[in-house]
Amino acid sequence: MSLQRNGDWMFKYYFEDFYVGQVFESGPRHVSKEEILDFARKYDPQPFHIDEAAARQSIFGGLIASGWHTGSICMRMSVDAMIGAAASLGSPGVDEGRWLKPVRPGDDLSLRIEVLEVIPSRSKPDRGVVRVGWTLSNQKQEAVMTMKGLGMYARRPAEA
Amino acid sequence: MSLQRNGDWMFKYYFEDFYVGQVFESGPRHVSKEEILDFARKYDPQPFHIDEAAARQSIFGGLIASGWHTGSICMRMSVDAMIGAAASLGSPGVDEGRWLKPVRPGDDLSLRIEVLEVIPSRSKPDRGVVRVGWTLSNQKQEAVMTMKGLGMYARRPAEA
Repeated sequence: MSLQRNGDWMFKYYFEDFYVGQVFESGPRHVSKEEILDFARKYDPQPFHIDEAAARQSIFGGLIASGWHTGSICMRMSVDAMIGAAASLGSPGVDEGRWLKPVRPGDDLSLRIEVLEVIPSRSKPDRGVVRVGWTLSNQKQEAVMTMKGLGMYARRPAEA
Repeated sequence: MSLQRNGDWMFKYYFEDFYVGQVFESGPRHVSKEEILDFARKYDPQPFHIDEAAARQSIFGGLIASGWHTGSICMRMSVDAMIGAAASLGSPGVDEGRWLKPVRPGDDLSLRIEVLEVIPSRSKPDRGVVRVGWTLSNQKQEAVMTMKGLGMYARRPAEA
């Protein structure tokens, strides 16, 4: 993406602004039944995600959010907490995604992002990769999802 | 989920129907600009996902799909190819997700799913975990995303 906005270099976070142990927090974010159904009908139409009666009969005992929906909510919360203010160049990938407990209609989710590693690019000196750990918790302070994510960020240009 | 549909035990795939090397294929699945924008506005509102002008200025040279959108499309293609016909009990997680090349408006995506490992549950003899590798490719036969996913499946009940 362009690092320039309205003619100014003006991101809050460039690659060199990240450090190991740095924490970002986002939420609470409400999850409605309608959103769970809408996402799952498009992207994960398994009975326990789209059919309340079938979900009640399932091992989950009721409707639960698709894991991809939960991850996408984490992504949005990350953008709101940090990435949206950063010189983001996209993500090479994610590791160790774990869905620990169901996310259910009416849950209020909070995300904690901790910087685990800061890795300058060897081939491109203007950027680097930041590895973070995500912990998504519900209103009962139960961890519902964890994941490790990679993000590429530009260094602050000389003009900034 | 209930393993019973319309009074019959009738999934095509139970845990014991999976074997290492088994392949499922899905697609092609078209990706429209409207869908890319709609997903990203909700879940990943970075400029190169939601703003065509900013995307042109970015390192990607144009609008690209959110990685979470691409993964969610993979999920849907998996449900269409296999999980929708299987005694699925949800997923413990995913590993080694890699976004290798951008997914762009107008792309037609194909998914290849290969069974990598079949792991009976030690604590619950009625089920097991199947580990699969996903390779998502575009219309130029370029791999755009790879991931390893875990799925829990019920064994065929005695009645089936």
